[in-house]
Amino acid sequence: MTTGVWLVGCRGSVAVTAIVGALAIRAGLADRTGCVTELPLFAGVPLPALADLTFGGHDVAAVSLVKKAQALADEGVLPGGPVRALEEELAAVDRDVLPLPSARDQAETAALMASDLAAFRKRHGLRRVVVVNVATTEPAPAPHPAHARLDLLEEALRGSRPDDGAVLPPSSLAAYAAFLAGCPFVDFTPSTGARLPALDRMAVRRGVPYAGHDGKTGETLVKSMLAPMFAMRNLRVRTWSGINLLGGGDGANLAQPGPNAAKAASKGKVLRETLGYVPQGEVRIDYLEDAGDFKTAWDLVTFEGFLGRRMRLDFTWHGCDSALAAPLVLDLARLTAAAHEHGRSGPLTELAFFFKDPLEPAPHALADQWNLLCGFAGGLRPGSGPDSGGPR
Amino acid sequence: MTTGVWLVGCRGSVAVTAIVGALAIRAGLADRTGCVTELPLFAGVPLPALADLTFGGHDVAAVSLVKKAQALADEGVLPGGPVRALEEELAAVDRDVLPLPSARDQAETAALMASDLAAFRKRHGLRRVVVVNVATTEPAPAPHPAHARLDLLEEALRGSRPDDGAVLPPSSLAAYAAFLAGCPFVDFTPSTGARLPALDRMAVRRGVPYAGHDGKTGETLVKSMLAPMFAMRNLRVRTWSGINLLGGGDGANLAQPGPNAAKAASKGKVLRETLGYVPQGEVRIDYLEDAGDFKTAWDLVTFEGFLGRRMRLDFTWHGCDSALAAPLVLDLARLTAAAHEHGRSGPLTELAFFFKDPLEPAPHALADQWNLLCGFAGGLRPGSGPDSGGPR
Amino acid sequence: MTTGVWLVGCRGSVAVTAIVGALAIRAGLADRTGCVTELPLFAGVPLPALADLTFGGHDVAAVSLVKKAQALADEGVLPGGPVRALEEELAAVDRDVLPLPSARDQAETAALMASDLAAFRKRHGLRRVVVVNVATTEPAPAPHPAHARLDLLEEALRGSRPDDGAVLPPSSLAAYAAFLAGCPFVDFTPSTGARLPALDRMAVRRGVPYAGHDGKTGETLVKSMLAPMFAMRNLRVRTWSGINLLGGGDGANLAQPGPNAAKAASKGKVLRETLGYVPQGEVRIDYLEDAGDFKTAWDLVTFEGFLGRRMRLDFTWHGCDSALAAPLVLDLARLTAAAHEHGRSGPLTELAFFFKDPLEPAPHALADQWNLLCGFAGGLRPGSGPDSGGPR
Amino acid sequence: MTTGVWLVGCRGSVAVTAIVGALAIRAGLADRTGCVTELPLFAGVPLPALADLTFGGHDVAAVSLVKKAQALADEGVLPGGPVRALEEELAAVDRDVLPLPSARDQAETAALMASDLAAFRKRHGLRRVVVVNVATTEPAPAPHPAHARLDLLEEALRGSRPDDGAVLPPSSLAAYAAFLAGCPFVDFTPSTGARLPALDRMAVRRGVPYAGHDGKTGETLVKSMLAPMFAMRNLRVRTWSGINLLGGGDGANLAQPGPNAAKAASKGKVLRETLGYVPQGEVRIDYLEDAGDFKTAWDLVTFEGFLGRRMRLDFTWHGCDSALAAPLVLDLARLTAAAHEHGRSGPLTELAFFFKDPLEPAPHALADQWNLLCGFAGGLRPGSGPDSGGPR
Repeated sequence: MTTGVWLVGCRGSVAVTAIVGALAIRAGLADRTGCVTELPLFAGVPLPALADLTFGGHDVAAVSLVKKAQALADEGVLPGGPVRALEEELAAVDRDVLPLPSARDQAETAALMASDLAAFRKRHGLRRVVVVNVATTEPAPAPHPAHARLDLLEEALRGSRPDDGAVLPPSSLAAYAAFLAGCPFVDFTPSTGARLPALDRMAVRRGVPYAGHDGKTGETLVKSMLAPMFAMRNLRVRTWSGINLLGGGDGANLAQPGPNAAKAASKGKVLRETLGYVPQGEVRIDYLEDAGDFKTAWDLVTFEGFLGRRMRLDFTWHGCDSALAAPLVLDLARLTAAAHEHGRSGPLTELAFFFKDPLEPAPHALADQWNLLCGFAGGLRPGSGPDSGGPR
Repeated sequence: MTTGVWLVGCRGSVAVTAIVGALAIRAGLADRTGCVTELPLFAGVPLPALADLTFGGHDVAAVSLVKKAQALADEGVLPGGPVRALEEELAAVDRDVLPLPSARDQAETAALMASDLAAFRKRHGLRRVVVVNVATTEPAPAPHPAHARLDLLEEALRGSRPDDGAVLPPSSLAAYAAFLAGCPFVDFTPSTGARLPALDRMAVRRGVPYAGHDGKTGETLVKSMLAPMFAMRNLRVRTWSGINLLGGGDGANLAQPGPNAAKAASKGKVLRETLGYVPQGEVRIDYLEDAGDFKTAWDLVTFEGFLGRRMRLDFTWHGCDSALAAPLVLDLARLTAAAHEHGRSGPLTELAFFFKDPLEPAPHALADQWNLLCGFAGGLRPGSGPDSGGPR
Repeated sequence: MTTGVWLVGCRGSVAVTAIVGALAIRAGLADRTGCVTELPLFAGVPLPALADLTFGGHDVAAVSLVKKAQALADEGVLPGGPVRALEEELAAVDRDVLPLPSARDQAETAALMASDLAAFRKRHGLRRVVVVNVATTEPAPAPHPAHARLDLLEEALRGSRPDDGAVLPPSSLAAYAAFLAGCPFVDFTPSTGARLPALDRMAVRRGVPYAGHDGKTGETLVKSMLAPMFAMRNLRVRTWSGINLLGGGDGANLAQPGPNAAKAASKGKVLRETLGYVPQGEVRIDYLEDAGDFKTAWDLVTFEGFLGRRMRLDFTWHGCDSALAAPLVLDLARLTAAAHEHGRSGPLTELAFFFKDPLEPAPHALADQWNLLCGFAGGLRPGSGPDSGGPR
Repeated sequence: MTTGVWLVGCRGSVAVTAIVGALAIRAGLADRTGCVTELPLFAGVPLPALADLTFGGHDVAAVSLVKKAQALADEGVLPGGPVRALEEELAAVDRDVLPLPSARDQAETAALMASDLAAFRKRHGLRRVVVVNVATTEPAPAPHPAHARLDLLEEALRGSRPDDGAVLPPSSLAAYAAFLAGCPFVDFTPSTGARLPALDRMAVRRGVPYAGHDGKTGETLVKSMLAPMFAMRNLRVRTWSGINLLGGGDGANLAQPGPNAAKAASKGKVLRETLGYVPQGEVRIDYLEDAGDFKTAWDLVTFEGFLGRRMRLDFTWHGCDSALAAPLVLDLARLTAAAHEHGRSGPLTELAFFFKDPLEPAPHALADQWNLLCGFAGGLRPGSGPDSGGPR
């Protein structure tokens, strides 16, 4: 039996790249580069096979997956050959991409979303469906007392208008709907998602795990690798400044003050956590339409060494955001499915390796996150008990 | 009782920076930034205090330590204030810096070197003396059958002319002399040093530990941190090219083909070991007299991600070589002394963290080397047995 | 007879570096590197000698020039030796640095400033005094009808309160006072200065020249050199993004929205003027206190070539702002003095070479600006008429 | 009547890109970006139209133009659409690409080459044929007395074996054959080409112009733009170091010591000529197979400013070599044809703008070269005399 992957934001670049990639690998048209769960470390871990993933999702956009994939191929994000070869398969997936339901209150909307999930599961005879949020980044929501308690939340959602004065932002409503349907949930964006006490409680009560936040794909990945070097060598980082230039839908959205602030906050944690202090310097995110899905980041680090000598390191990162994010979406769907199968529920803090702003408590140095992931993989192997997956 | 640090190449930039630094810290004129052994990790580890190190050494050069320190201050390597304040202390150390002995054969030369070490120890009432080689890099020596067996080596040294047709290169003769005098030995350069079966045997037999090779201070440090990131993310590094521009005595020496090849070989290992394959690309070392003790390195990494997308990372490192190396010299002297006190002999593979080309077996990823060092530190704490220091 | 240089913002980094530099060159303690007017091009041009410049100025700050120079030496901006050797000369200059006058209206304030200029000229028997504004950047002022006509301006200044609701911003009041005293004026900052129709009229009427705006010292200098390359090669610049990280007083001031916007506007012109269109991308200026007077800028240029191929160039500039600006201040004082001597009045558009936002009409490509400067120099040589200095 | 462009090395990347580009522009499938001769400057200059160029050439390789173009499209050098659309036109051109003749001596070989040129001209009814050398870079040839005098050369070629002990290297033999056939010649590589006194004499005697050497497409282009900035500002360049990483056939060839030295020598001139001195630092060219036709260059410039302050600039250039070179090949063919039409013969020093190592006397600063080109263009306009084209 196969595993469903339900992508919220299913017509976006990351989702389409993930779908094309999984189909291309299944068809032998691409190799598995970039897929962490295909490393030897995961040999013997009972993950659903890449070929056994079935895709569907919600999206407000109407462009077909085939058209979107062709556009991504024209931009150089996707290889043209596989896109042409997979048109039929993509059209088939398209039948499982639904518009976001909208009802008179958020409770009813969530019920419709959950019923879309259940129907998808039944239609394809899936063992389970993992919901992954890859929709555009939201501004931080206004606080609401119902975020703290599940009973208050359930009550508040009844009567919550879908737009103005909504109790939950869309990402959290997606998490709520996933839990309602008994589905694990992955927050791949900096949006709030499942990160509310009421939703954490709901996940635990319904026995489903969740993971997040904000896939770590570029500048922050490098930072989480480099910053510990300075700490280990007792070198004092004086300043760390960074600028990210990106286009695409993600870039356009992050040019808005709300999402920009949410993203910058997510990106800023790694230094404080790995160095133990916050050096001077800002993280800038600038929209550069022409860059499309390719992101260029430049970081300048100045540091102080022995006898006060000042030194510097700067790096330039030029990456394709969707190509970096998409295999992690597949990794997370597989790992979260396996954790659910293994009996895990609540926050999967051991997946910090994948995230800019991991669920706490978790280390922020990439090597430590890797070690944690290794332990998690070990705990999923046959013979390990349900609680052995990590440092709960 | 204090610990002696005997620096082979004692009038060079690294040695003088280490001496000035230790004296400045003792005098409260500088803080401990850059000293790994001053991190909280080493709390409770019985290391000799920085203030309890006594310095001496061999050198072929005649410039006084004060003059050399002033020259380094003029170049911006050392801070001017401490150098001026420490002139008297530096002059005192100068009395323990001796010319390299030279006798009719290498056996006799080694005996004179060992007797210099013994006299230094006695003169200052030192508990032990650690010998650290910071002399200029040598070309790889011609192989010799006596390198393989201690008895053959001892015989061959008797009759080995000091220069042409020498059995041992200078760095290995320094290691031989250290072991003869019962002193631990640290190879801070890529030269051969103790890295010969006969010398390894000698160290074990005489109960002294040794460490090496080639202090990891700049470009390779960053590489050992970054390369594992690509491996962990299953990204395929296609090319890794680097160029190092440096001046100073080290730069001038590395402009010679022999030392250049030795250094490049030492720098090249990290990628093969951390990635599991060797990407295309060269590591260049170019002499740029005007750069003085400051080194600029530029590395370009191109890699392949999901669905074949090509991406790139480049970094520029601008560091002061002596300021990066000197605190590691102090760290290694302290750690090797403590290991000796703890009963360790032979290769200290757990100190791989400090080296470009560590004694095998050892990991090459910096984070793994750090974990190994943590274990080593733990093993030195009171109550740990003599064999608990690491994975022998 | 010597020439006076009156620096508005005389205790700031740029002014103090210019003064120390001129004194050091006169004393044979420094060479003339960085001084454009010392190039062979200017041989035979009757400029006042560097050794014949006498300095004074206005400033709101109270720190002595000696103290400020020592602080700049500690930061590595000025060389320590000359600063120590020139303490007496600096203290002498300090007697000519006066607090900014403040009276009940701007007319009276300007009269007091002009009388400071006259007294300075008389005290030292100067042939003329050139006023150079190196004070911190102001926000763009509110428009005022009196900016357009000199008679309206003179009337409005009488009754204009010095602070709130001032008719002229401080830089323009300084230009007004300079013209009142018959002194040439140089705008070294992006502030308004003489750039108002009423002030232009006043300069012409009183027979004094003026120059500006905004000394071109770093990123914009490189841009004005590189951008024409793309135009000459018919390569289409798609994006040009830049970030400037700087500390010091200038950095702190530019962190304010008003001055930041003024500076960014000044920096933005070069691309539009040299390319003929405006590529995508922003120019960022970020305050990084720890950087002090050293500025690091990073620019990324993406461009399209033959058959649509996309290519890229990025550069990193690491410069000392005061060391770059100070010799230009001396150059401009000398050139403006010579132009005045030659009978020029009104805008010196031929000095565009020195400015980010030159007085129009003027080319923006550095090489064209250089050719214009060459013609200007030629026109100042003995035998050239007063109008031959450039393309009026 | 149309103009023939005869490419020596006609199946290489640069030649094929030039041909595809010209055909694509003619067909309306591409715009003219990258073509200098399409700038407004050339309005009214009687150049042969891009659509009126007819291509042919010599090559030792046998791959068809269509196949080569497809391979370049797969590498991302050429756009796929136009290549597919132009297959028929490319196959037509292929009929005019001949193997290099080989006879018993160089005189006879040259006669065969000249007769290929004459036949090409006749076959297509061309007004003239311009020969452009885009073959791989040769090592510098051994000096030979016959290089100095045309009569000696003609004699020596009779009896010169084509390979070992050849009197002329292939590029010079190509120039000789071109002149024999009355064709203008363009040296687009650093090879010797027409740069021998005997060949210069031959060109003048036969009334044909020639241009060269070594198309300026990347790092040297930027250098020729940036270096004058330091000179104009009286900033002292202390070091200028560069590394070029490139793959493709050009890269493989330049990995050989002979061609590498020839190229590095060609690249080195710009600094000496524009600065007036040679700063420290090397220019490295490293082969990186995986880079294909894309070249990455990194240059570090350190310089000294006012009062000895040290500063730095580094830049990274990432360009597609063939896309940068190909439009210049078209430009040079058009300009050389027009000069021939205009009655010019001998060296066209005014085309220095296009070359790394221009024919002397010529300026090396790009802006000065541009001005020279502007004058040249003006001189070609109807009404200008045959000698007005430049500063002969």
